[in-house]
Amino acid sequence: MRIPFEKLKAEFKRILTGIDFTDEKAEKCAAIFAENSRDGVYTHGLNRFPVFVQHVKDGLVKPAEEPIKEGGLGAIEQWDGNYGPGMLNARICMNRAIELARDNGIGCVAIKNTNHWMRGGTYGWQAAEAGYIGICFTNTIANLPPWGGLDPRLGNNPLVIAVPRKNGHVVLDMAISQYAVGKLYQYKSRGEQLPLPGGYDSEGHLSTDAAAILQSERLLPVGFWKGSGLSLVLDLLATVLSGGNSTARITANGKEAGISQVFICIKPKNDDHTAALIEEIISYTKTSRPEHAGTTISYPGENTLKTRAQNLKEGVLVDEKIWNTVLGL
Amino acid sequence: MRIPFEKLKAEFKRILTGIDFTDEKAEKCAAIFAENSRDGVYTHGLNRFPVFVQHVKDGLVKPAEEPIKEGGLGAIEQWDGNYGPGMLNARICMNRAIELARDNGIGCVAIKNTNHWMRGGTYGWQAAEAGYIGICFTNTIANLPPWGGLDPRLGNNPLVIAVPRKNGHVVLDMAISQYAVGKLYQYKSRGEQLPLPGGYDSEGHLSTDAAAILQSERLLPVGFWKGSGLSLVLDLLATVLSGGNSTARITANGKEAGISQVFICIKPKNDDHTAALIEEIISYTKTSRPEHAGTTISYPGENTLKTRAQNLKEGVLVDEKIWNTVLGL
Repeated sequence: MRIPFEKLKAEFKRILTGIDFTDEKAEKCAAIFAENSRDGVYTHGLNRFPVFVQHVKDGLVKPAEEPIKEGGLGAIEQWDGNYGPGMLNARICMNRAIELARDNGIGCVAIKNTNHWMRGGTYGWQAAEAGYIGICFTNTIANLPPWGGLDPRLGNNPLVIAVPRKNGHVVLDMAISQYAVGKLYQYKSRGEQLPLPGGYDSEGHLSTDAAAILQSERLLPVGFWKGSGLSLVLDLLATVLSGGNSTARITANGKEAGISQVFICIKPKNDDHTAALIEEIISYTKTSRPEHAGTTISYPGENTLKTRAQNLKEGVLVDEKIWNTVLGL
Repeated sequence: MRIPFEKLKAEFKRILTGIDFTDEKAEKCAAIFAENSRDGVYTHGLNRFPVFVQHVKDGLVKPAEEPIKEGGLGAIEQWDGNYGPGMLNARICMNRAIELARDNGIGCVAIKNTNHWMRGGTYGWQAAEAGYIGICFTNTIANLPPWGGLDPRLGNNPLVIAVPRKNGHVVLDMAISQYAVGKLYQYKSRGEQLPLPGGYDSEGHLSTDAAAILQSERLLPVGFWKGSGLSLVLDLLATVLSGGNSTARITANGKEAGISQVFICIKPKNDDHTAALIEEIISYTKTSRPEHAGTTISYPGENTLKTRAQNLKEGVLVDEKIWNTVLGL
């Protein structure tokens, strides 16, 4: 089922204004949720919206709160998110990092006590659309084991890296778990095998069986021991730079709220030479012969643009059941 | 076979002074090679030394050249490595990034026309020992295919992230390929299977057979499509920020020389509160029950310190054949 983008956004806004969001904040949050679905990240668009509304009702997300600057030195700043909506806090932080990069070449904003930013790529696109390189990451509640361990102690801590480009920005948006928990549930409910190993079963064997992985709670980090180390280090950076809650502390609290994030912006030379360097890299990568005839090699963000164009033209693809839930909110 | 650290270093220095290194440069380069072996990264210590000497003799690495600053804005600078020794250029760039972070909270140095830095972790440890967070990465010659492709078009572009810590720095040093090419050759020559899939065989099946992977040239990036995207984006950053050679250009040149690197430093609050946050994260991670009884969960860099202590006490472990080659240089 497809719904026009503006209708999706208007519906989100209607609901948010009913739960203490000002008109301006409701407009901004609704846009982000609608854009996430528009760009094909349905898990952090429409599908996540009812959860977000519940978090607001539960007091985990406080719509009236604003982030404030707590300290800083030159091109780096620490902010307190005051448990406000994670998407709005993240927008403000990336915007501030852009300003710092404009003035200093590079800028960094770390924020504590913020909330889930939904799709991390949103803030990568934000930086790239302003003509800046954007790097951002967040910690989360523990949802995968460290390498060599059985119990979840690491977050899937998404990492976003965006590079501005005339003919479509390059935006990498990767979580550390090979497959998101939501993705595993999708495969489980369809009774399908994962295309590639996504974790371990209870016997400790690499598995493509989503149900077995969900049962063992042993989701695979990207690159086995490497992703395990990367997740730990991103949590260290987010926690140390913001002075906020670590994955350990978030998990101890029992609910994913009051998390820590980092936003780094760098000002590239946006000249013809730089543009040519970027095209050279992308076109070279695409010369690799495809594994399957008729397919092509894509750069991160390329398929986002295709999905966006289709969803804007034909209406945004929605899960009918979730859409009806939202209409009833 | 074990050789005292000082003897290893003295031997490296003797050879370097014989191929146009000044006493000072020979001392610094010899220290880095010896320290890499001391820390257990034998592939980029003794084992790589004869290749480095050959590169100097072939004119790919120019010992007399110095890196120079080409431009900059506030906390970000562009340098030209002038094809000097990659380790010395990298040391200078990380040192400059530390100075920029000291003055601005965060600093970034991008360098073009530099050479292989050997162990990327060297510069992470450098930042951490100065009390700074260090993030650095490099591009390389193409050695793995992009996701969905058959021909190598991406570098294994190592990424280093270091966090200073009183009781042992946390230093992540990860290449994008799941296993280094050198590692695959090790397994092939021993006739052993890889512990985990490291690439595809010629039939396109995930494989633990190093020989089959080397034949297909389809090394696996960490996290399949995710590592493929990460490698591309790191190459974009290194190339765009330095204005230097991309993996495409390096590969077209046929020899891995004149590569591009980025060094970012951030000044953390080095206070008791920050130290406590770090310990909380590490000790929480270690509470995950181990997969195999009697083992423990390690953080990145932890085993380096153990290997370092042993190699300093008992002598640095060396490959006897390579050691004899070096003695004859």
